[in-house]
Amino acid sequence: MKRTTLSLFVAALAGVAVFTVTTSHYVTAQEAAPIFVKKIPPGYRDWRVVSVAHEAGELNDIRAVLGNDIAFKAYREGKLTFPEGAIVGRIAWSYVPSEENNKTFGRDQSFVAGSPTDAYLQFMVKDSKKYAATGGWGYSSFGKDGKPTDETAMKTCFPCHQAVKERDFIFTRYTP
Amino acid sequence: MKRTTLSLFVAALAGVAVFTVTTSHYVTAQEAAPIFVKKIPPGYRDWRVVSVAHEAGELNDIRAVLGNDIAFKAYREGKLTFPEGAIVGRIAWSYVPSEENNKTFGRDQSFVAGSPTDAYLQFMVKDSKKYAATGGWGYSSFGKDGKPTDETAMKTCFPCHQAVKERDFIFTRYTP
Repeated sequence: MKRTTLSLFVAALAGVAVFTVTTSHYVTAQEAAPIFVKKIPPGYRDWRVVSVAHEAGELNDIRAVLGNDIAFKAYREGKLTFPEGAIVGRIAWSYVPSEENNKTFGRDQSFVAGSPTDAYLQFMVKDSKKYAATGGWGYSSFGKDGKPTDETAMKTCFPCHQAVKERDFIFTRYTP
Repeated sequence: MKRTTLSLFVAALAGVAVFTVTTSHYVTAQEAAPIFVKKIPPGYRDWRVVSVAHEAGELNDIRAVLGNDIAFKAYREGKLTFPEGAIVGRIAWSYVPSEENNKTFGRDQSFVAGSPTDAYLQFMVKDSKKYAATGGWGYSSFGKDGKPTDETAMKTCFPCHQAVKERDFIFTRYTP
C-alpha cells in the first residue's frame, strides 16, 4: 500500500537481485496463485477515512487511507487481524501549494490535494484462501486512467508489506 | 475552517484594528445572534472525506475535511450553495515523520497523522436563519480536550472565510 507506481518501478529495477534471493518462494507462490485484484472496488470513494499522510520525494503526494465497512470496524476495534472481506484503500493526489489559502493565511504554508497521481488508487483485499500466497491479502494498484499497474511492478507489494507482518501487513494506523 | 486556535489567537492579537474597521457591522451582528456552535456534531468521524491538506508553519498539521451526507452530496453535485443542514468538518492531526515508513521506503519521505492538535476539530454548520449574521454558517472549533475555542478568537472565522464568499464561504474543494 505504501508503494506507488514510481517507487514500484524503481524497486523493480533496483531490487530485483535482493528480491529474488530473499523472497523467491513467494514469487513462486505468486506465480501459481491469483494475487492481484484487477477491478476497482465499487463505492470506495464513500468509505470512511482511516488516516491521512504525505509522501514527499519522488512520490510527492498527499493521500487518504480509507476502509470498507469490514475494515473500518476492525480498525476501530483495534483488531490485529482483519476479517475476510476487509478492503483497505488509499487515494493519492498530487501535493500542491494552495495560493488561495496562502493568501488568506498571509504566508506560504498550505498544501492541498491536486489531481490524481500516476499511482492514484491502491487496495488490499482480504481473502485468506484466494490470496494465501501473499499473507491473505490481494494487492491492486490503478493509475489515473483507472488501469491496473503492470504485474511485474506489483510483485514488490507483498515483500515490502512484510515489514509490518505483525500488524497483518497493514502500514496505516487508525487516527481518531 | 482554515484558521486554527493558534492562528486565531495570532489574528485576534494582530488584526484587531483592521478587523474593527472593516468588519464592525459583522461584529455587531455577531454579538446580537448565535453564531458559534458549541457541540461537536455526533458521528462526524463516520462522514465521508471531501479532501485532505497539510498546513505547515505554526500549525504544522495534516488534516482531513469531511462532510455530513447533505454537505457531501452538494459537494459531489458541484452545488455552489450548500443546503440547509450541511455540515463541513475538519480534523487536524499533528504532522509527524514516520520512521517505520521511511525505513521501508529506504528514505526520509513519509509524514503521517499523529495526535490531535490544539485546534483538533472545526465545523461549519449551515442554517441560513440562525446564522444569518455570518453568511448562513455557524462556526465552531474544539481543542484536543473537546472543549470549544474561546469566543473572542472565533470572531475571526467569518471575516477570513469571506475571501471565498463566491464558493459559499468554503475553502476546501472536493477531490474525487
